[in-house]
Amino acid sequence: MEHPSLKIGIVGLGRLGRRHAENLARYTPGAQLVAACSPIAAECEWARDTLQIGTIHADYAALLADSQVEAVWLVTPTSLHAAQIIAALHAGKHVFCEKPLSLDLDECHEVAAVAARYPHLKVMIGFVRRFDASYRTAHGRIKNGEIGKPFMVRSQTCDKNDPDGFFVQFAPTSGGIFLDCSVHDIDLARWMLGNPIAKRVYASGTIAMHPGLAACQDVDNGVAICEFDGGQLAVFYASRTMAHGHDTSTEVMGTAGSLAIGRNPRADRVEIADASGVRNACTPSFYERFEDAFHHEAQAFVQAVLTDTPLALSLDDALEATRIGIALRTSLQTGQPVMLGAA
Amino acid sequence: MEHPSLKIGIVGLGRLGRRHAENLARYTPGAQLVAACSPIAAECEWARDTLQIGTIHADYAALLADSQVEAVWLVTPTSLHAAQIIAALHAGKHVFCEKPLSLDLDECHEVAAVAARYPHLKVMIGFVRRFDASYRTAHGRIKNGEIGKPFMVRSQTCDKNDPDGFFVQFAPTSGGIFLDCSVHDIDLARWMLGNPIAKRVYASGTIAMHPGLAACQDVDNGVAICEFDGGQLAVFYASRTMAHGHDTSTEVMGTAGSLAIGRNPRADRVEIADASGVRNACTPSFYERFEDAFHHEAQAFVQAVLTDTPLALSLDDALEATRIGIALRTSLQTGQPVMLGAA
Amino acid sequence: MEHPSLKIGIVGLGRLGRRHAENLARYTPGAQLVAACSPIAAECEWARDTLQIGTIHADYAALLADSQVEAVWLVTPTSLHAAQIIAALHAGKHVFCEKPLSLDLDECHEVAAVAARYPHLKVMIGFVRRFDASYRTAHGRIKNGEIGKPFMVRSQTCDKNDPDGFFVQFAPTSGGIFLDCSVHDIDLARWMLGNPIAKRVYASGTIAMHPGLAACQDVDNGVAICEFDGGQLAVFYASRTMAHGHDTSTEVMGTAGSLAIGRNPRADRVEIADASGVRNACTPSFYERFEDAFHHEAQAFVQAVLTDTPLALSLDDALEATRIGIALRTSLQTGQPVMLGAA
Amino acid sequence: MEHPSLKIGIVGLGRLGRRHAENLARYTPGAQLVAACSPIAAECEWARDTLQIGTIHADYAALLADSQVEAVWLVTPTSLHAAQIIAALHAGKHVFCEKPLSLDLDECHEVAAVAARYPHLKVMIGFVRRFDASYRTAHGRIKNGEIGKPFMVRSQTCDKNDPDGFFVQFAPTSGGIFLDCSVHDIDLARWMLGNPIAKRVYASGTIAMHPGLAACQDVDNGVAICEFDGGQLAVFYASRTMAHGHDTSTEVMGTAGSLAIGRNPRADRVEIADASGVRNACTPSFYERFEDAFHHEAQAFVQAVLTDTPLALSLDDALEATRIGIALRTSLQTGQPVMLGAA
Repeated sequence: MEHPSLKIGIVGLGRLGRRHAENLARYTPGAQLVAACSPIAAECEWARDTLQIGTIHADYAALLADSQVEAVWLVTPTSLHAAQIIAALHAGKHVFCEKPLSLDLDECHEVAAVAARYPHLKVMIGFVRRFDASYRTAHGRIKNGEIGKPFMVRSQTCDKNDPDGFFVQFAPTSGGIFLDCSVHDIDLARWMLGNPIAKRVYASGTIAMHPGLAACQDVDNGVAICEFDGGQLAVFYASRTMAHGHDTSTEVMGTAGSLAIGRNPRADRVEIADASGVRNACTPSFYERFEDAFHHEAQAFVQAVLTDTPLALSLDDALEATRIGIALRTSLQTGQPVMLGAA
Repeated sequence: MEHPSLKIGIVGLGRLGRRHAENLARYTPGAQLVAACSPIAAECEWARDTLQIGTIHADYAALLADSQVEAVWLVTPTSLHAAQIIAALHAGKHVFCEKPLSLDLDECHEVAAVAARYPHLKVMIGFVRRFDASYRTAHGRIKNGEIGKPFMVRSQTCDKNDPDGFFVQFAPTSGGIFLDCSVHDIDLARWMLGNPIAKRVYASGTIAMHPGLAACQDVDNGVAICEFDGGQLAVFYASRTMAHGHDTSTEVMGTAGSLAIGRNPRADRVEIADASGVRNACTPSFYERFEDAFHHEAQAFVQAVLTDTPLALSLDDALEATRIGIALRTSLQTGQPVMLGAA
Repeated sequence: MEHPSLKIGIVGLGRLGRRHAENLARYTPGAQLVAACSPIAAECEWARDTLQIGTIHADYAALLADSQVEAVWLVTPTSLHAAQIIAALHAGKHVFCEKPLSLDLDECHEVAAVAARYPHLKVMIGFVRRFDASYRTAHGRIKNGEIGKPFMVRSQTCDKNDPDGFFVQFAPTSGGIFLDCSVHDIDLARWMLGNPIAKRVYASGTIAMHPGLAACQDVDNGVAICEFDGGQLAVFYASRTMAHGHDTSTEVMGTAGSLAIGRNPRADRVEIADASGVRNACTPSFYERFEDAFHHEAQAFVQAVLTDTPLALSLDDALEATRIGIALRTSLQTGQPVMLGAA
Repeated sequence: MEHPSLKIGIVGLGRLGRRHAENLARYTPGAQLVAACSPIAAECEWARDTLQIGTIHADYAALLADSQVEAVWLVTPTSLHAAQIIAALHAGKHVFCEKPLSLDLDECHEVAAVAARYPHLKVMIGFVRRFDASYRTAHGRIKNGEIGKPFMVRSQTCDKNDPDGFFVQFAPTSGGIFLDCSVHDIDLARWMLGNPIAKRVYASGTIAMHPGLAACQDVDNGVAICEFDGGQLAVFYASRTMAHGHDTSTEVMGTAGSLAIGRNPRADRVEIADASGVRNACTPSFYERFEDAFHHEAQAFVQAVLTDTPLALSLDDALEATRIGIALRTSLQTGQPVMLGAA
């Protein structure tokens, strides 16, 4: 008796794409990385030589036509996500797609509508933090009633400052700080609070270090308040300018206690005591922080497909995160609160 | 040669008033607590018997007429503050007054105007946290440039839940959660950011545990965003419903680093490891957290008077804190951002 | 071009053995788990059905005779280690063996002597903590001079109390608390201090909870001081009676600073604030604490064999750990310091 | 009705003496610092001018003859302690004396014998850590049974390195590192464990930075194991060479949990996040760490005299600490364990 496995074709082999590929090739039991697709020759070469992937496609259509491929793994620019997911569904493939689903709400709805026509195919957007061990423990404790009824979330995604401001050139297409960074926090807040729907949001921000962002009405430090329909609250903070590293943390307040995840972004279990005091190093980027979560995410998707069990998060979750993110951007740009009707 | 001393009359001997009185009587070099004033017989008795204060006045006018008294120390209901400060100034007394200055902006301006006519008299509102050793260290590090240019503050005042909801009955006169609790955070934020003036605020909140607050349009958990005229940001959180204790903390983000004060509200230096994990106890109320700060505050005021040196904080600071606090309440009640013109 | 791989036969499929097997089967690139060996039918069945290992041997001789097997992976009782390693070497196999090498110093020397005759074969004893990310970082910082010259180590291995005292029945064959638990700390201390040789040791201990240990002159809490030939010091603590979990920690003192690894044995990045204070859960057992280290250990061994590069730790290290562990036991039992000549 | 007060004469106004004097003059309700005694003119002048102490004596006999003085406060060289305490008792004065009682066991016994003849006079040796809020909380929790039965203590006194090695010149008269530093830890260990008597000790040490100590057989880093008559254990560490500050910490292991006091020697509640990671400053010296404890110690002594209630610690405690400290020094110098008979 052979163990079942899922034959996967990865699309996009940039920095994060390569990590997904290695992860699927080496650390995801049940996954078989049978094909890769990239328009860039060097990336194809890497896939062939380093990962020994058997089939390399230069374009996406060819990959979708590849009958051995059962699932596509999209690590492509956000602007391509919706169309690529829809095409994959029409081609009969399961889909994993990096976050965010799309920066355009109509596209989100369209993807959801198409996916609804293929109920036997799984589609998951990579909200990787849901698969982090600490976030999972926290969620379990909340479901278990350990903090009473949760009524508020504070969550932040703060990146280490890039002194070159490299990201500024991507600002026009990133969707702005809230859609780029805070979608994770939005998704976590809803997950921790029992999936409420947003009612009203207000956002503000400042440019602390990167004046180039002003041209596209973006900021390098943004804050926001989100009110949900059940009276729950969320406060978000996103920053591009941290000095100490990547600092993602989330707090959940409940009527009988509160939980904090990642309050000190420790790189490891080492503490150093010297003339500067007692200190710990910090996780330099999201990848060091969430490396294990990427593994668990891939394992969860592959297992859900192989055993045909429901996914942990739905397209509706991804859609609601985008909807809220767009409203935050609007509020930032108008200075007014944005009302959100039923999703 | 006798050391100089300041003869003080304390007004109000409720719970916090008694602590101020003991503090002045025992731990404030240079202070001489010569008189006390309270309308409540038991309080007067305590002042006479326990603290051995020589002169007890049943009413405030008598205390002001007491020529030995050089300074009054007001720990009275907020609604009395403005009138009592003004009367004290007219009587030629220095004034220390517990926060907040007033819930009414016109009163604040009136106090400031009267005080301006008595430049030789000192008036200080008790924003006690400015005298806490950790906040002072943090402020010093910021002035020293250790985190670069500060551009954002997050600050919270979270009280331990009182299961009896005793505070609910004071809600109609407290000014609401922002004027009662967040004034401290507002003052700290301005202090850390170089005393900017608020430009626009937005507030929201929820009632997590005390439905009785709805009657006076108050909440037991409030959040707010404040934008300052120099582009700086502040995010506030105030809560009445913490399970673990009094949890006051403040973070200051700068272009070269950030500072956090009081992130874990440790009661002491003890950690306990047992079947529930590794834990520390928390400060039960603001008094345990700021006991030393109350000492330093009294010492600072007395020294400033004795040496005729400037106070660390001005009436303008107290006025701006009230102005912002009122705007936060308005925003909470209207659901709209509130614009604040020049102070 | 096929990637090279190492064909491994695992021996012993008890609790820890199964974890090694899963690890080799799923998370060790380059490893091929081709055979397993256990005298217990249920274990063989698990290997066949769950891990789908192709060849199952009922006895060790058969596994050694299996020509496809290039390396054996011993997770067997300590009393068998020396003979099994020697037999594997004679059969031309590389050897990974769980710690400790042996409780008998002569056996350690014999293994070292035989291994020296097969320089092309790798033999590694599983001092897993050397492969933990935090210990590696700490070691790198020390080598980098970040704490000056290291002169002292404090290290502890403290297990969560088993209220059933199940381990008491193994006490007669475990070698006692120092050989069973402290060998890890001994090895870490030597590694951090630049591999010095022990000169004199003194040990003491107490029975806090498990009186049954008295019969075999063992304790459930043991402490020891070890002096090394270069003047360095180590202090060890081993316990079987922790209430909060598995608590392994190590401090290294240097002339310009000190390093602590694992001071709070956090289970994850979650902190809980409730009526009991602020707390974190703890790692329940060594496995949760060192799961990643087991992965890295296996990867390191497999890579060293595949690339024929030197191992991170030698049989001499394993021998010195046993030599010191035996001396600690002797000291505990005699109440006298034990002098150790050149190794 | 006048509050009772205790008229105190302080003896010795060196660095620590001045702090005791200020403390008594300003922060010790019930204390009246009426006289001071020092052979050094500048110190006398400081007492007169800064503290406005009325009577200044150039020698100790004169102070003892001063009838207004009810209690003497000795902050003098250790070699004078015993004779000064005895003389004070003969003169009918209560005595507070800085630790240690004496470096000579016979002297300790003699003091105890004389004190026994004056049961109406209080004598207390300043083991200040017993008056620290965190140590008191810890002791209360243990008495309360929160960690079950305590069976082991680890305690350390580690001073910040003085690069000038100033202390080396005092090494010949300090009694060595254990009598100078570890007496505190010895006293704390006995207090936490229920005042057991030592049975056997073993000590070792190393010179990491100050070779000058070799001349008087002392070390700059010392470790020791102490076995008590009830089977309890203590492990001590004393260091003169910390890079990060003064680091005093103590752990108490019990059958149901453990307590740690001062694990991270935080200077305050501030945490800094910058390019070096997340860090806190450390207490630079014992005085910053134990400033409040010095206040509480003085208050406790004064209250015990004024109310004629028993002291928290006895001369027998001070004697046992010296007895154990001497045994540790002997063990360090001989390399052998030292047996201690009944105290």
